[in-house]
Amino acid sequence: MNKIKHLIDPMDLTVDELNEIFSLAEDIIKYPKEYSSLMQGRILATLFYEPSTRTRFSFEAAMMRLGGSVLGFSEPNSSSVSKGESLSDTIQIVSTYSDIIAMRHPKEGSAKVATMFSSVPVINAGDGGHQHPTQTLTDLLSIRNLKESIENNVIGICGDLKFGRTVHSLLKAMSRYKNNKFILISPKELTIPEYIREEILIENNIEFMEVERLEDVIDKLDILYMTRVQKERFFNEEEYIRLKDSYILDKNKMKLAKKDMIVLHPLPRLNEISKEVDGDPRACYFKQAEYGMYVRMALILKLLEVK
Amino acid sequence: MNKIKHLIDPMDLTVDELNEIFSLAEDIIKYPKEYSSLMQGRILATLFYEPSTRTRFSFEAAMMRLGGSVLGFSEPNSSSVSKGESLSDTIQIVSTYSDIIAMRHPKEGSAKVATMFSSVPVINAGDGGHQHPTQTLTDLLSIRNLKESIENNVIGICGDLKFGRTVHSLLKAMSRYKNNKFILISPKELTIPEYIREEILIENNIEFMEVERLEDVIDKLDILYMTRVQKERFFNEEEYIRLKDSYILDKNKMKLAKKDMIVLHPLPRLNEISKEVDGDPRACYFKQAEYGMYVRMALILKLLEVK
Amino acid sequence: MNKIKHLIDPMDLTVDELNEIFSLAEDIIKYPKEYSSLMQGRILATLFYEPSTRTRFSFEAAMMRLGGSVLGFSEPNSSSVSKGESLSDTIQIVSTYSDIIAMRHPKEGSAKVATMFSSVPVINAGDGGHQHPTQTLTDLLSIRNLKESIENNVIGICGDLKFGRTVHSLLKAMSRYKNNKFILISPKELTIPEYIREEILIENNIEFMEVERLEDVIDKLDILYMTRVQKERFFNEEEYIRLKDSYILDKNKMKLAKKDMIVLHPLPRLNEISKEVDGDPRACYFKQAEYGMYVRMALILKLLEVK
Repeated sequence: MNKIKHLIDPMDLTVDELNEIFSLAEDIIKYPKEYSSLMQGRILATLFYEPSTRTRFSFEAAMMRLGGSVLGFSEPNSSSVSKGESLSDTIQIVSTYSDIIAMRHPKEGSAKVATMFSSVPVINAGDGGHQHPTQTLTDLLSIRNLKESIENNVIGICGDLKFGRTVHSLLKAMSRYKNNKFILISPKELTIPEYIREEILIENNIEFMEVERLEDVIDKLDILYMTRVQKERFFNEEEYIRLKDSYILDKNKMKLAKKDMIVLHPLPRLNEISKEVDGDPRACYFKQAEYGMYVRMALILKLLEVK
Repeated sequence: MNKIKHLIDPMDLTVDELNEIFSLAEDIIKYPKEYSSLMQGRILATLFYEPSTRTRFSFEAAMMRLGGSVLGFSEPNSSSVSKGESLSDTIQIVSTYSDIIAMRHPKEGSAKVATMFSSVPVINAGDGGHQHPTQTLTDLLSIRNLKESIENNVIGICGDLKFGRTVHSLLKAMSRYKNNKFILISPKELTIPEYIREEILIENNIEFMEVERLEDVIDKLDILYMTRVQKERFFNEEEYIRLKDSYILDKNKMKLAKKDMIVLHPLPRLNEISKEVDGDPRACYFKQAEYGMYVRMALILKLLEVK
Repeated sequence: MNKIKHLIDPMDLTVDELNEIFSLAEDIIKYPKEYSSLMQGRILATLFYEPSTRTRFSFEAAMMRLGGSVLGFSEPNSSSVSKGESLSDTIQIVSTYSDIIAMRHPKEGSAKVATMFSSVPVINAGDGGHQHPTQTLTDLLSIRNLKESIENNVIGICGDLKFGRTVHSLLKAMSRYKNNKFILISPKELTIPEYIREEILIENNIEFMEVERLEDVIDKLDILYMTRVQKERFFNEEEYIRLKDSYILDKNKMKLAKKDMIVLHPLPRLNEISKEVDGDPRACYFKQAEYGMYVRMALILKLLEVK
């Protein structure tokens, strides 16, 4: 038996492997019928120890569109977990029933632990504040398709850059592609962690700047990646009042942006993108969600070595 | 792209469209194998913001019997809703993953709102006290099959006629078929709302009478449509005690009824139909539930323009 | 129409019928592709009035691996039950939507009741402390495959033998096979009930002995069937402290056992089998879970008379 392939950290995949997955996803988009029964008789187990409807649906739709079936739970209450069964036992049993596992867990590192006990591929569908690699694949595929290339872009990332795992993974992943420039937009309290600044950006000679206000830089961006800023993260009420409007994307700010800028967001959003922006052709976050399904289809096929 | 078809209100469909759906459902009943893979590779999303096992199962079985797959949630707790995502965002995302959506929501009008954001057909599976159109389709198909025609019947409708949305929809729908006569059986506090009486029955010259006691009229009925009467709806305890037995169908009342009367009920029932009636060949409410599955199969095919 | 077949009690099946099921399961294990679309277009309803992830997954995987679909609920909260619908009504409706039902219910006898109202086969997936026949089928198939025969074994059963329904069913089932000898290992407070001792073991002339400590007898066993002992079951703290280590299987005890002894456990386990034992080739409880899926595949085919 070959070594089982898992996806725990977006950096588990080389740039070549990523490109293979993206090419496959694009082929699926073009010729969906060619892929619609490749997973017939196979089972995806979705083990969601923490609810996440959107991510779960994306995995389930991916497997179903490949002709496969899905079993699982969407929250831990209805699972054996409430009887005290250990994660390792659950994984060992579920991997005898299924062909591939997508797991979301509130505890960091739990997906890695799962790989030690699984006899089938495990996909990390989010482990606490740690990793969410299929979101990163989604982001990269979206950029590749909506901007033609993952290289040569000016990318603004806006919101809570300190705690947002999506942002950290995206920075790491993008740092491997050539000639991107990052503009990091956040309150001072919520700038990127030191290790990202040092080990990812500076070490790789990546051009970046850090600013506080979206409106000051939006005209320079090819891509605007929005994330949420929670009020509780601010040091004090005053700061929050001073800055909050800077982190809400609305029609007025969109007027300042390039005609071909694209707006991405990992979703779900609260109010950080005003609904008035949804009709703007540059608003691509729902399109991005769709790419998420296709990239998961490609990933499942790759991990099971069907393609 | 053609305009997307939805089903929000039973009156969205013309009598001709209804007849097409019923004919198709009857063909499915006769030749189920002909239909068993038409939805292969397609996905129904069941978004139940309010639990309703029976309705959800009916939709899921319908899609599965057509060879399709199902994803969704059965209550809002385990969904992104609990993270505050708006209905419109959920619909936009889910409609990128699925081919058709069945949605149940406690808030009136929410299904209509969903159609504004969905890129695929939306079926209203109940929106508060408002509409539940697939129940009406179920009722009509049951009558058409069990009484041969939706015309020329004396129909008793018994129970809470004031708040029962099922009853209002049925009256509206039946008012479009010829020569039906209604006998409306309810406590005085729970008679049909004025707008139904005026705008549906009187305006369309439909013969109807309103009575208080089932036993007084059961012998005249071709169809008896039972619904629940909740104790809390009565003005006072005395009234309740005086009348409650009038709204419970039992063997004794069945003795007074025609030999070919049929009994329908939207289910679930509590005690308004005594279990001793279940064995009576005129008790058709479980058969009715089965028609509900077939009419949903036909509806899915029609909305997706496969048939 | 033939009489509908159900599985409520493991003793519903004759030894010949059991052997047919086991042979079929073994054929499925050998030639899975031959069976992968036999249930296409058919629906299994999993009605879990009490959560049990492992059992539910096992049934769902079984149906899916046969090409069928699954609908159901995993806990009663999200079902019509919370609206007060009776079990008999739920069963009558669900059996119009599905082809076969697997039901788990906290109340003893409820599966039997379900058979009275179902128009399709019902499989008891556990009814309170009463029966759990597919666990027994799993145990027997595991023994047949891992020890070559269900006859001529020395079987140690360890843990709470008083309340464990799994143990009682296994003893009843094994009593029908020749020349097995049982060593029953439990605290005195938790020995097998009198009716099992009298009516099953003594009446059938089955050799057995009852002991208190696993380490005293483990060297004699061909099969060690472990179950949980809950602290609350002991009469007093002193007894518990004196005995608890006797009911935990660890590496040291495994050293005393035969080289070809197998260890089984119905799972989920808590700490009664130390994780250090998992790597031992004699630890077969995860393999046993896999047999559980295959035996359910065979059972579904037999009850629906497809094989």
